[in-house]
Amino acid sequence: MTASTTRRPGGRTARNTAAVFTATVDELADRGFDEISIESIAARAGVHKTTVYRRWGSKAELVRQALAATAQSMIEAPDTGTVSEDLRLLSRAVQATLGSPRGAATTRSVLAGAAASPEIRAMMAKFWDTRLAAIAAIIDRGVARGELPAGTEPAGVMHAVAAPLYYRLLVTGEPLTPEHADETAAAALAAARAGVFSRT
Amino acid sequence: MTASTTRRPGGRTARNTAAVFTATVDELADRGFDEISIESIAARAGVHKTTVYRRWGSKAELVRQALAATAQSMIEAPDTGTVSEDLRLLSRAVQATLGSPRGAATTRSVLAGAAASPEIRAMMAKFWDTRLAAIAAIIDRGVARGELPAGTEPAGVMHAVAAPLYYRLLVTGEPLTPEHADETAAAALAAARAGVFSRT
Repeated sequence: MTASTTRRPGGRTARNTAAVFTATVDELADRGFDEISIESIAARAGVHKTTVYRRWGSKAELVRQALAATAQSMIEAPDTGTVSEDLRLLSRAVQATLGSPRGAATTRSVLAGAAASPEIRAMMAKFWDTRLAAIAAIIDRGVARGELPAGTEPAGVMHAVAAPLYYRLLVTGEPLTPEHADETAAAALAAARAGVFSRT
Repeated sequence: MTASTTRRPGGRTARNTAAVFTATVDELADRGFDEISIESIAARAGVHKTTVYRRWGSKAELVRQALAATAQSMIEAPDTGTVSEDLRLLSRAVQATLGSPRGAATTRSVLAGAAASPEIRAMMAKFWDTRLAAIAAIIDRGVARGELPAGTEPAGVMHAVAAPLYYRLLVTGEPLTPEHADETAAAALAAARAGVFSRT
């Protein structure tokens, strides 16, 4: 790590990072993965393109990190003491993101890119792995408290929470409401309790 | 109904209808809703465009009817005697369709069109209503046999079966396997049994 890429919390590098990530997500939402470039992102962020190239190397890696950071800040894994409430809050957070115009546009943009490019598919697979690792703790705590069967697969439960929300956005076009988010979490929990996602 | 549009099973009109529907779905899969026209569909089907205009009126209505007929023939609502097996077979049928290259291409094509056009969104809403009416019988029989709580909403269960399958196709890119289809049906059933989709 060179002096120019050292992060100082609240310093110039941190501000640049935040500006570049915001510009990346905005560019994605407005124009789509294929249409954007490190140059266009750097211009939008008001930083030199060489800085962006040196730090992130490629557009795909920059997009992956920007989305991961955005997801991390928008969808923190809750820890309320019950798996039921944790899943409900998680579902509400995903619903709020996908239900917002910017979140919906970014999601559509990335998925359209992924359909066309193996590079973006690989980036998204890495993105999901990171997200899953962060929220698997919800499930592990639920199993430890005896709320869920032993061997419950975190990935199965997490995708069960997320799938109906993405499906409304991408397939049926029905509105993403808090009530639907709660129903989605309750359905995933009922299936998990019944052992559907248990591998032991 | 004029003489020229009367359907005779196995006759010329029935053959033309089948040819036009097949051409419509093939055009959709190959080129997408925006790029196709009644002219291009008629040419592919080997019928005169006037015949297609007179019978279906608009591209949107033709696409809606072609998709409904295709879904009807590919995904018949099963009636095996238990809601568990009915849902499993339904899930397998959706998985086989979305998991096939042609089904995946057609689905992506229609959804991309729906994202861009209110006309296609309205067409798809009508399509879903038709599909739901056809398979609601599975749930109604399950309630009548006491396998599901009174007041279980067919739409809730059906979307719970479908959502994880579309989600794999459109979001995570994981393969659509028979095992996943069975898990999806089991999860929807567990949630329905727990009363998550019950409105009474």
